[in-house]
Amino acid sequence: MTNSEPDASVQAELERLRASIDNIDAAVVHMLAERFKCTQQVGHLKAAHRLPPADPAREARQIARLRHLAESARLDPAFAEKLLNFIIAEVIRHHETIADGTTANGTTGNGTTGNGTTASGATGHPTG
Amino acid sequence: MTNSEPDASVQAELERLRASIDNIDAAVVHMLAERFKCTQQVGHLKAAHRLPPADPAREARQIARLRHLAESARLDPAFAEKLLNFIIAEVIRHHETIADGTTANGTTGNGTTGNGTTASGATGHPTG
Repeated sequence: MTNSEPDASVQAELERLRASIDNIDAAVVHMLAERFKCTQQVGHLKAAHRLPPADPAREARQIARLRHLAESARLDPAFAEKLLNFIIAEVIRHHETIADGTTANGTTGNGTTGNGTTASGATGHPTG
Repeated sequence: MTNSEPDASVQAELERLRASIDNIDAAVVHMLAERFKCTQQVGHLKAAHRLPPADPAREARQIARLRHLAESARLDPAFAEKLLNFIIAEVIRHHETIADGTTANGTTGNGTTGNGTTASGATGHPTG
């Protein structure tokens, strides 16, 4: 393995691929921003109508569906499931922030609360 | 908190939001499938031209850019950075699978190798 500069055509191809990766990353960030807007609406709707925050049947359907989609896209289904769990963890954090009565733009949520009604992230989390 | 059925309009609104969440999740899965196609091309290009797999400067630019994009989309920048690291971990796994000489569709990569040249995930990982 060398650290010499690659020739121009290789560098150009690398830059082309990296530009696509950057475009995709921007798209994913904006899709997830939109997703969190939806889950926050779900959270408020459930709170307003005293619906249980967790819905295990819905969650099981989401996981099964994402694993199937991943397979058809030639992604590892286990990766898709881990990704969903990763995103859900952030959803939980948002909902905890809502429960803490602070703004829910994701920049707070440090776990401190003064009202004793902090939602637990371990159980009963709202998945949307 | 009750477990009674919500009225029809609330249920309809919940279903509307969940349909959007499901659409977004399908989009993200397919964007990531495309992203892994790009990073695999990057991996093969680097291997063919003996370029170093890791590029810390590129990685730093990716993180800074994603954090900035996240802020403009009102996502937690720390979440965006964690997401990038989560995806990069999968990229590393794909590249290890390539290094193992097996197919790289994400369904292998169990860490067993017979050639003693397994790429380390801890250092020098290819980020694209």
